[in-house]
This record gives sequence, structure tokens and C-alpha cells, in this order.
Amino acid sequence: MISKNPIVSHLVHLCYEHGVRHVIISPGSRNAPFTISFDEDPRFQTYIIPDERAAAFFALGLAQYTNTVTAICCTSGTAALNYGPALAEAYYQRIPMLAITSDRPEEWIDQGIGQSIRQENVFQNYIVKAHSLPSDQSKQEYAARLINEVLLYAKGTIPGPVHLNVPLYEPLYDTIEEPVSLPRVVRKVEFLHRVAESEINSLANIWNAASRKLIVIAAIEKDEQLQKLISKLASDDSVVVLTETHGNLTDDQFHPSIDRIIEGISDDKIKSYTPEILVTFGQNLISKKLKQLLKKMDIMEHWHVDPATDLMDTFHALTTQIDDTPLGFFRLFVPEVQTAESTYREQWDVLEDKTRKAHQNFLTQLPFSDFYAYKEVMKAMPAGTFLQMGNSAAVRYVQLLTQRFDIVYHGNRGTSGIDGCTSTAAGAAYLNDTAFTCLVTGDVSFFYDVNGLWHQYLSPKLRIIIVNNTGGGIFRIIKGPSSTNQLEKFFESRHSTRAKNVAITYGLGYRAASNESELKTVLASFFGDGEQAEILEIFTPTESNDQVLKDYFLAIHKALQDA
Amino acid sequence: MISKNPIVSHLVHLCYEHGVRHVIISPGSRNAPFTISFDEDPRFQTYIIPDERAAAFFALGLAQYTNTVTAICCTSGTAALNYGPALAEAYYQRIPMLAITSDRPEEWIDQGIGQSIRQENVFQNYIVKAHSLPSDQSKQEYAARLINEVLLYAKGTIPGPVHLNVPLYEPLYDTIEEPVSLPRVVRKVEFLHRVAESEINSLANIWNAASRKLIVIAAIEKDEQLQKLISKLASDDSVVVLTETHGNLTDDQFHPSIDRIIEGISDDKIKSYTPEILVTFGQNLISKKLKQLLKKMDIMEHWHVDPATDLMDTFHALTTQIDDTPLGFFRLFVPEVQTAESTYREQWDVLEDKTRKAHQNFLTQLPFSDFYAYKEVMKAMPAGTFLQMGNSAAVRYVQLLTQRFDIVYHGNRGTSGIDGCTSTAAGAAYLNDTAFTCLVTGDVSFFYDVNGLWHQYLSPKLRIIIVNNTGGGIFRIIKGPSSTNQLEKFFESRHSTRAKNVAITYGLGYRAASNESELKTVLASFFGDGEQAEILEIFTPTESNDQVLKDYFLAIHKALQDA
Repeated sequence: MISKNPIVSHLVHLCYEHGVRHVIISPGSRNAPFTISFDEDPRFQTYIIPDERAAAFFALGLAQYTNTVTAICCTSGTAALNYGPALAEAYYQRIPMLAITSDRPEEWIDQGIGQSIRQENVFQNYIVKAHSLPSDQSKQEYAARLINEVLLYAKGTIPGPVHLNVPLYEPLYDTIEEPVSLPRVVRKVEFLHRVAESEINSLANIWNAASRKLIVIAAIEKDEQLQKLISKLASDDSVVVLTETHGNLTDDQFHPSIDRIIEGISDDKIKSYTPEILVTFGQNLISKKLKQLLKKMDIMEHWHVDPATDLMDTFHALTTQIDDTPLGFFRLFVPEVQTAESTYREQWDVLEDKTRKAHQNFLTQLPFSDFYAYKEVMKAMPAGTFLQMGNSAAVRYVQLLTQRFDIVYHGNRGTSGIDGCTSTAAGAAYLNDTAFTCLVTGDVSFFYDVNGLWHQYLSPKLRIIIVNNTGGGIFRIIKGPSSTNQLEKFFESRHSTRAKNVAITYGLGYRAASNESELKTVLASFFGDGEQAEILEIFTPTESNDQVLKDYFLAIHKALQDA
Repeated sequence: MISKNPIVSHLVHLCYEHGVRHVIISPGSRNAPFTISFDEDPRFQTYIIPDERAAAFFALGLAQYTNTVTAICCTSGTAALNYGPALAEAYYQRIPMLAITSDRPEEWIDQGIGQSIRQENVFQNYIVKAHSLPSDQSKQEYAARLINEVLLYAKGTIPGPVHLNVPLYEPLYDTIEEPVSLPRVVRKVEFLHRVAESEINSLANIWNAASRKLIVIAAIEKDEQLQKLISKLASDDSVVVLTETHGNLTDDQFHPSIDRIIEGISDDKIKSYTPEILVTFGQNLISKKLKQLLKKMDIMEHWHVDPATDLMDTFHALTTQIDDTPLGFFRLFVPEVQTAESTYREQWDVLEDKTRKAHQNFLTQLPFSDFYAYKEVMKAMPAGTFLQMGNSAAVRYVQLLTQRFDIVYHGNRGTSGIDGCTSTAAGAAYLNDTAFTCLVTGDVSFFYDVNGLWHQYLSPKLRIIIVNNTGGGIFRIIKGPSSTNQLEKFFESRHSTRAKNVAITYGLGYRAASNESELKTVLASFFGDGEQAEILEIFTPTESNDQVLKDYFLAIHKALQDA
């Protein structure tokens, strides 16, 4: 018998999975779902102690003895505050404890209802981690992640008390016989800190038994050692490596043009491309399409390698977060793995092959447009260039084009703002005398951060290429805005500002191009040596840019169907 | 007998002043200074209850019955956390209580010392106001303000529990026979909420008995009713009114040129200009010199009129904060006051007269400079203009010039940033078709917010006047930076940027002036009707500007000595 509230039953389930065995309950009504669920479950030993202060100190003693996360559970109101002294004591003793405080739903707080106080973060000065669960029972994935996180923190490198505040609607006493069958997303997540040998072995065993493994690499600096390790993993028919341009790990076996390739995976084909194991590392995945695809896949193991302290469950599939650097982890992991027979890589290679041909074919007939401009610009850049991808449309176009292995890709993708791309490029260029730093940006982003040019530190090796379509063309590409009356004025922020006088004001060279031949002429000499930083402004036709992009994806689709 | 620690003795003193009579103490060592001081003082009734949780609930009952602020006092560590339940209860019952939690000095926290937890803000979810006092015993004024503030909050419009966390060094048991003589700044501050008639009468009695009253007006919107009330107060030989330009209350009896006038008050003359009563209202006083002068004065009564909830003790002299609008308060107050015989106003008038003459004399021989530019600009503005004073040097120069009663003064003085003056001026101008909006700004401020021009909403009645001295000249005027090696590069941010191409980029008209005759010619037609917003850039000599200003103040001083 267990509470009908799925968030309660998930919490009970995850408590067990994370090793909770003892639950000290103080009587109350709001916490009835927990009282019933824990007490009816024979896997837990329950205790009843009326004074919450005493209950919490009792639990502290139990936790000291058993060396497991001990749970305390109380009703709403000041009951929770009585946990304070014991939790503070546990904090400074580094003893793992879980305080489950029942609460009224947030809309009832401060509304003159009894036993309702602001319980959120109430222990913040002396707790290792705290979350309030959503009161909306449909948010099960979100609740599961928060529960996993606090339980992982309780047993973390520095163990200690954690707090889950749980708002609960009535009815509180309704039960069902069997626990709800758990959705896939409600699973125990492991957090491996600087993995031990035994853990490496058990991960390698899972890996070696699988015939479909997908590695996705987001933003990471060039690293030859790491590249060799991943290349070794990739030389296996059961392994596919997808990498974003700012991943900066390059190998002919990797597939860098993610958005183009996965355009070929229609909903009915998702299953056949789903890996058994997904391994991810690097920050700030750009491809929205990839995020959506991975979320739709039913992936049994997702390992995320990141020396971070909060769970990152981007695809709602995380099973193990490995608290180590990618190099640190793969150096131990790669020697332990074996190759497997599989057609998995071939499947993706076929997709890559077809879409690449369609892509190349389309590019030969590309009319003058944003896409055309980005294509020519990316071709013209000298080897060794440090590219700064502007946010919004710029980075998306660059991702569509085949990755160049001889340049370094960067972009402000930490928060993806348009507010500082020029400043960042100027800073990145300032001390780099050996190669060009080239910012490729849209017009809105450029004018936004025009003060990125207002200082004394403009390197003569800085190149800025503005693809000026007189407004935020991105809003024509993505859905939503394009169907509104506010498209031109509020989303695109259409303007007629030109960069020419900006260049004069801040002392940069300036050139412009408005058609194919002008662009080719300018680009032929744009990366020459000179005395000053240079701007190239490319004027593209505002209205047709989005059509070109639509045609592009149509061409990719068609090629896949024809084949 | 009382603790030797002056902050403890001030706290005891202010508790009594604010009506605390009952103190419930739980035994401990860190709180010994309070235990001794409260218990030795026959004005307080002390109680000893070992369990802090019970002690706090007991105090709650006492407070309910006596309707006064009841104090509870405990040692450091988890002791404080036991106050939580009763404080939360008091919060929701709106019962005034003061929790005094003793603490270790902040540098001992989290250093493995017993009874040390992070006590600051530990009750934040259910407390009306909380402060941690400074552990440095020399910060007596600061401590007194914080103590006053929490005690005022306890009895505020919405009464409730308040918290003072008090870090204490050893020795804890040292006492002296008599309380330390209280410094002036340790005084009870009153907070009058929407003042009652009886309170008006008692304030009027104090006013009527005084023969030296000073009113200082900071930023406030034009308000005819309020102006009449202040004018009535000003027609009294015992009353002086100082007003800043953005005060926007104008009367020939007021003295708007504060910085110029008080230049005449040398340290040995401060006493003769010190008022018995200082009344202040309006936000964001600009004059640094006035702030310094008032801090030096030994003012017995300082009333600040402001419907705000935190104490604003700018001059360390506050005695009463009146929680009402200036109009609301003076409407009730002015009918109750009488004039007094005094030479106070005459003293100030003589000062004003002498400095005005020296000022006018200096202006006739002013060489071309920043000061000259501001003088001419302020003269050229048509009646009715809405002036936006740019921050940094601009606002200071404008304050030096005689206030014009026929224009409206504004400026971003809330935080005094240079980051949005142009944007603010553009916004202020957009819907104002009847008059010019004129931003007067320095060059650094202008280029900083150049994006304030990057939109579709530039009124043709917007005028921007940039006094371009190629860098932050303010740093030559103020002390500190001018003595460093970093003056030009890091403080002035010297540059050679010009606004001409900025004007072209964003579609504004542009004119420039580099000497007296050019400036006069341009200004003669600058405020004419036109199709577009206009920029006037005045280039002044970087190096001599600060010398001109130094000469100016020298001339003022000389005139006062000669007289």
C-alpha cells in the first residue's frame, strides 16, 4: 500500500535506491502520505517521535551508527523549524540526513491558513542541498531530478544534511495497492566522483555488452590526448561520435554536421538510431534539434562526464554523472573497452553520406543570401584562424557548414547572449599575434555591442564580418514569432543602421559587399596584413533568407526519400 | 554595572528608549555581557529559562500581554535556532519581539570552533527585520543605526519579531560601574508613520522654540502646493532653505547654489552656521560638500521626511524619520509654526551675496573650458526646456551655475551611473512635443550609452550637448585619482572618439564647436525647429579644465577673505 500521489511514491522509491533504511516520523496530517507509504513498505524501519527537535537528534544518532542517509519527516508549519538544531549539528559533523518537510501548496502560503509558513530554504545556512518539489503531480521528471540531487549531495564528497520540502494537496490519505509503475525518467542517478577502478570496470562491462553507443561532444578546447582517446573509441563499428563545431575535437570518423544529419531521422526511424548508451561531455550543446531528438529517444544509459556538482539531465535520460574531467575519465576508461560487432555506425554513415551529397549539391546552386554569405566567409578564412561565432543566426549557419579542422571555433554559448560577442572577439584577438581572430556576426548582435570597439585594444589581426539583413532574421527561421503581427517590429527589430560610420568612429577599416561578385572580391584580400582591424559588412536580402533555408532542408529531405 | 563593550551598552540603552522592559535570558557564556548588563539595570525585569524554544514562546506570551517589544537573549550556535518556532509564530501573529543572538566574530565561523554556525539571516523567512551588528567596537554609529532600525521595525505599521545578531569578542565578563557616556550618534531615532496631530504639535513646539532652522531639498518633482508651503516656512528670519537644482522647488528666498555658498564655511566657522533643527526631503542629494559639512555639524534634531521603510541617516544626525510624503507632512505642519527672531538667515544671505558676486565676476573672465561651455549652454536653453543632467562632471558644473527657474532639472541620480543618460533623455523626450529635452553630458558618458540612439524613437525635439574633453575630466577635479600614475589611462579613460559619425550612423543632426565664437554661433540656432534630433559636440581643452575650476574656488575664497 502506498500513497496515490506519484511524487510521494517516487520519493519513497528513490530513498530506497539511495540507501535510506530508517525513517523517523513525527505525527501530523500533512505528512500522512509519507507516514503511510514508508510504514507500509517493509523495506523501511519506521519510528514515531512526537517532538521534531528530539526526532531529528535521534535520527542524527541513528545516522552516526548506521552510516546511511537517515530520513526525518514532519508536517507543515513550525514543525520543520524544530529540525534546525539537529540539522546544524549534522552539518558540522558531516552526517548525511534527509529532512522531508511536508508543506501546503505555495499558493496557500501567507494567506491566513494555519500551519503555513515560508518553508522554502528555511535551513539554508546549514544544509548541503535543499529543494522544494513541484506541487504539480505531473512534473514527475523534475521532481525525480531534484530528489536524486539532494540524495546524491547527502552522500557527496562532503556529506551532510539535505532538505526536501514537499507541498502536498489533499486528499492526503488516499492509497493504492501497488506503487505506480515508475516512468523511465524516475530512476536512480549515480554520481561518480573521480571514478574508482571498480567503477571503471563496471562501466566498461556495460559498454562492452552494448552494440550501439553514441558519444556527443559539445564545447571543449582542443586537446590532443583526449582526441586520441575518443578516436580510439570511434574506431569501433558500434560507436558513433557526433561533435559540434565548438567541440574542437576533429577526426574523419566523427560527424560534425549534426543538424544536417539528424534532419534525416524522422519520428518513425528514431528507434533504429537510438543508442543503448549515450555518453556526453563538453558544455553548452548548441543544436536544438539534437536536444529534441535525444529527449524523444528511449536511452537506457546516459553517462555525462563533467566535474560539476549539480546534476545536468539535459535529455531526461541521465543515469550516471561522472564527476571527473573528460581526459581524467577516458584515460582510465578507454583501456578497458573492447570493440563490438554492430551495424550502428554504418547506419549513421549512410545518413551522413546522403545528406552530405544533398548539402554539397544544394550549395553549388545557392543564391545570394545569408547562407551564401556564411558559406563564402567560412571558405575564405585562413588556416589557423580563431573563429568567434556570433550568437543567434550566425552560430546556426556555421554549424550547418562542414567543419574545418584547421580553424578553432569559439562562441559565447554559456548564456548565448548577443550582448558581448564583439567585446569577446576583441579580447580574444588582443594578445594573439600569430593568427587572425574573426568574428562572424549578425547585424543586431553587432550594433548591440558596438562599445566592444570603444577602447584602445583593437588588434590589427581582428576581422569582423557582419551579415547585415537589416534585422533579426533568426525570428523568420524559428517557429512562433513568424506567425505573429509583431514579427518585423518586435522580433526582428528591423533597422537600417549601417556599420560604415561605426568603423570610422572607432578607427577600423571598412568594406562592404552586396552581391556574389563583390563578396568574392572583398574576401580575396580581406585577410591580408594591415595596420588596423577590419570590418566587412555583407548586405543580404532580408526577405528571401528564410526561404533559402527552408529550401535547403527540403532538399536534404528529398535526397533521403529518393535514395 | 554594565558591560565594558560599548555596543552592548548602547544596545541596552536603546532597548530601554524603545520601550523594552522584559528580557528573557537563556544561560550561556557568549551572551554574558547581555546577561550582566540587563540584569544589573533596575529598569528591566529579567527572567531565566534554560530551553531557548520555551524561552521564546514564554516571551511571546509576555509580549501579547504587555503589548511591548519583549526581548529574548541567547548564546551562540544552535541555541538561536531554537527561537525559530516562536519567532515564526510571532511573525504570523504580528507580535513585536526582539531576538538577541550572541555570536562569535565572523572570522571564527566555519573554522572548527564549537557553538559557531552561520547565524546571520537565520530567521529570514519569518522575521520583520534582521541585522548583524559589527564586531568592531569602534563602529558605534553604524551599530546604533542598525539597533534603532530593528527596534523601529518591531513596532512598525506591521509589527513583528526582529533579530539582532551580535558577534562578541572576549573578554565577555568585564564590566564598568557607569554606562559609557553615549556619543551623540547613539540616540533613539523615531519613526513617525503618517504623523498624528499630537505628533505634529510636539514637532511644532520644538520648531517654534528654535532660532536656527535649516531645510535641505534634494531631488523632487515640481509641486506648486509644496512650494507655497516651503516658501511660507522660508519667510522667517530663523529659517534657511538650501535646494539642489533637481529639487525643482524655486523661490527667491531659497539658496540653490549650494556648493558655491558653503565654500565660504571654513572649519572654524562651522559652529556659527550649525542649525538647531535640520529638515530634509527629496532623494539623492548631489552635493558631496554639503554632505561632508552636515556630518561635521553637531545637529541636535534632524527630521527626514520620506515615506520609506528603511532609516536614512545620511549625516549621522537623524533623530526623527517621518514616514509621510513632504506634501502630506508640511500641509499639517506649516499651519502650526510661528516665526522667530534670529540672525540665522541673514548670516547665510551675506554668504550668498558675497559668493554670488565673486561668481559673477569670475564668469565674465572665464576662459574657454568645460566650465565656459556649461555656462553658455545653460544660458542658451529656451524657457520650458526639460534638462537632463548627465552624470559625473556635467551635473556638478550645472549645480555651480545659478539655477534657472524656467526650466525643469532631471538627472539619473538614483545610482548616479553613466550607463543610461542618453537612453533616459531619449525616453523623456519621446512623448514631449511641447518643449525641448536637452541632455548635457560629458564624452565618456555619451559614448558609453551610444545605443541610447539605436532605435526608432528619437524625437526631433531632442538635443544632446556633449562637452568633449577627450576623457573623464572629473578625475582631475576630485582628489585621489589625480595623484596616481593611473590618472590618464585608468581614470580619465582618455580617448579620441568623436561623435560626428555616431550622429550619421543613427540619423541625428550634428554640429561642433571648438572655441568661444563657434560655440556662440551654434547655440544661437541650435534650439530651432527641425526634422531631427541634434547633437552639439563642444571640444574643450583637456589639460586646463581642472585649473579653471581650481581658480574658480580660489576666487570665491579670496572674495570672502577680502570682504
